[in-house]
Amino acid sequence: MIEEKLSQLNIVLPETSIQKGNYVPSVRSGNLLYLSGTLPLSNGKIVYDGAVSIDRTIEEAYEAARLCALNSLAVIKSEIGSLDQVKRIISLTGFVYAPIGFPDSPKVINGASDVLVEIFGEKGKHSRAAVAVSGLPLGATVEIQMGFIELEES
Amino acid sequence: MIEEKLSQLNIVLPETSIQKGNYVPSVRSGNLLYLSGTLPLSNGKIVYDGAVSIDRTIEEAYEAARLCALNSLAVIKSEIGSLDQVKRIISLTGFVYAPIGFPDSPKVINGASDVLVEIFGEKGKHSRAAVAVSGLPLGATVEIQMGFIELEES
Amino acid sequence: MIEEKLSQLNIVLPETSIQKGNYVPSVRSGNLLYLSGTLPLSNGKIVYDGAVSIDRTIEEAYEAARLCALNSLAVIKSEIGSLDQVKRIISLTGFVYAPIGFPDSPKVINGASDVLVEIFGEKGKHSRAAVAVSGLPLGATVEIQMGFIELEES
Repeated sequence: MIEEKLSQLNIVLPETSIQKGNYVPSVRSGNLLYLSGTLPLSNGKIVYDGAVSIDRTIEEAYEAARLCALNSLAVIKSEIGSLDQVKRIISLTGFVYAPIGFPDSPKVINGASDVLVEIFGEKGKHSRAAVAVSGLPLGATVEIQMGFIELEES
Repeated sequence: MIEEKLSQLNIVLPETSIQKGNYVPSVRSGNLLYLSGTLPLSNGKIVYDGAVSIDRTIEEAYEAARLCALNSLAVIKSEIGSLDQVKRIISLTGFVYAPIGFPDSPKVINGASDVLVEIFGEKGKHSRAAVAVSGLPLGATVEIQMGFIELEES
Repeated sequence: MIEEKLSQLNIVLPETSIQKGNYVPSVRSGNLLYLSGTLPLSNGKIVYDGAVSIDRTIEEAYEAARLCALNSLAVIKSEIGSLDQVKRIISLTGFVYAPIGFPDSPKVINGASDVLVEIFGEKGKHSRAAVAVSGLPLGATVEIQMGFIELEES
C-alpha cells in the first residue's frame, strides 16, 4: 500500500547509510520504534549543507527536511521490512542549522511534516518541535529525529 | 480537582491555537500522550519574543517558560478532556533563545517546572533538559516540549 | 555483572548531584526510565565548561560527553539499584556547546556512545541525535539526555 503511494508520488527512498559510531539507526522496544537523527543524505553524501538564510534559502532547507524524512523512512523500512507496519508517526524533532535569531524553523520543518502526511495521511500526523541550532553533523542544513513510531502489533 | 487548584492559583489556561502545518498538538499512544512544542502565546499571539539577555531579562524568560507550560496544559485538556487524568508529567525539554554562551537556561526553564509542581504536586515532577538555541519559531523566547505525559488508565 | 565490567574498565561512577529545581533526575513509567539531561560533573562540580573549538578541544569535549554518560549511569543506579536491570539504552540526545557552524558534534558525542557500548555491549547500542547549541547549563561543554532506558521486567 505505502509502496504504491510512494510510486504515485514518484518518491524513491534513499539508500540507508552505513553507521559509523557506537550507535544504531533505530531501536525497537515493544511496538515502538525509536530513530536516530537523519541528515539530508543521498547515496551516503550530504546534499544540503550550510546555514539557512546564509548559505541556503528556506526553499532549499524545506527540501533538506523532506530528504531527512525520506532517510528516516528508509531506516524504518530497513528495520521492520515494510512501511505498511507503521501505525502512527508519533513525534518528530526538527533541528535547523541557522544563525542567531532565525525565526522560521517551522517553515523549514514543514518539508518533513508535509511529505509524511502525503505518504501516510492521518497516520503521518505527528507531534513536533522545531528549533534552530548552531550546527549539525557534517554541516547539514537540517537534522530530523523521528523520535517515536508506533508499529502495528505483529 | 486540578481545576480547583487552577482557581486557587488564579491560573486561567490560554486558548489553544489553531494548528497551521501537517502536524498536531498531541498524539496519544496507549496511556502516553506526546505533545508538540508550545510557545509563549496568549490568545494566539506571541507574548514573549526576542533573545534572553539581549531583548529579555531572565525574569521575563521565566514568565515565558511558565506561559509555554500553561499552553501545554491547555493542549492536554483539549485532548483528553480533564487534567485530572494526568498521572505523571514524565519529561520536558526546554529550549531558550539566547546568544552564544548563555549559561542560565535552567533559571529560565524553572518557570515551566515550578508551575507544573504548583499545579500537580508530585505528579508534576518531571525529568528535563534545558538548552539554549539560536532561534525559535516566531522569534519566541522559549519553547517547551512536554514530551511525555502518562495518563490514568481509562 | 556490570559492576565487574566497571571495575575491569577502571570506571568509578560519579556521585549523583543534589537536585535544585522542581524536577527530578529520572522518572519511571512501566519498564521505561526517562532521564534528565546530565552535565560533565564530578563531585558536584563542573569539569568541562566552555565552547568546543574555542575553549575546549574535540578530545576534551569527547571526555566531557563520556563523563555526562557516567553521570547518567549513576542516576540509573541510584534510581533502580543495579545497572544489571538495564535491558537496553534506547535513545540519547547529545547537545554540544559550540560556536555557529560547528560540524563535529558526532565526534564529541561518541564519548558517550563509546563508553555505553564498552560497559553494556549490545544492550548499550542506542539511537541518537547530536546537535550543537548556543549554550548549556553552567556553561557546560556537553549535555547528554539519555531519554529512554528499557528495564528488565521486575
